[in-house]
Amino acid sequence: MLSSEVVGYIAAFFTTFSFAPQAFLTLRTRDTSALSLGMYSMFVTGVAIWLVYGALKADWIIVMANGLTLMLAMPILGMKIYNRLWGNERPL
Amino acid sequence: MLSSEVVGYIAAFFTTFSFAPQAFLTLRTRDTSALSLGMYSMFVTGVAIWLVYGALKADWIIVMANGLTLMLAMPILGMKIYNRLWGNERPL
Repeated sequence: MLSSEVVGYIAAFFTTFSFAPQAFLTLRTRDTSALSLGMYSMFVTGVAIWLVYGALKADWIIVMANGLTLMLAMPILGMKIYNRLWGNERPL
Repeated sequence: MLSSEVVGYIAAFFTTFSFAPQAFLTLRTRDTSALSLGMYSMFVTGVAIWLVYGALKADWIIVMANGLTLMLAMPILGMKIYNRLWGNERPL
C-alpha cells in the first residue's frame, strides 16, 4: 500500500505542474480574455503565503512546490494585467 | 508573531477561494478558449489526490480545502470539455 507521503508527492506534482500547460498556452496565444483576474490575483497571493508557510515550517517540499507554482502562475497573471491595462482583451 | 498554522490557514483560504471568481466567470460567459484543458485535467486530478492524502492523514483542513477547490474547479473543467466536444471554442 502507498504511504501517505508518496500520495502527497503525487498530488503536489499534479497541482504544481498543471500550471505549465496554462502558462505555455497563455504566453503563446497571449489570450487572457477567459482568465479571471480575481483568480490569478488571489492564487498568486495564496501561493506566496504557502511559500512563507513552508519556510516557517522548514518544509522544503512545500517551498519547492510553491516556488515552482509561483514561477508558472506569475507570468499568467502578468499577461492578464498587461492585456487588461492595454485594452487587448476581446469582448466576451 | 503569527504562528505557522495561522499562515497556513490564510494561504489555504486564498488558493482555495481563488477558483471562485474563475468558476463564476466561466459559468457566466461560457468562454473557455483561453483556458488550458491540460491544466484543468491535471489540476482536478491533483486536487482529488490531495483529498485522498488528507483522508489518509485524517487532516480535515486538507480534506475541506481540497473538497471546496474540487467543487469550484470541476465545473470549469466540465465547461471546457463541453465546449471542446461541441466545437464552441473561438479560434485563437
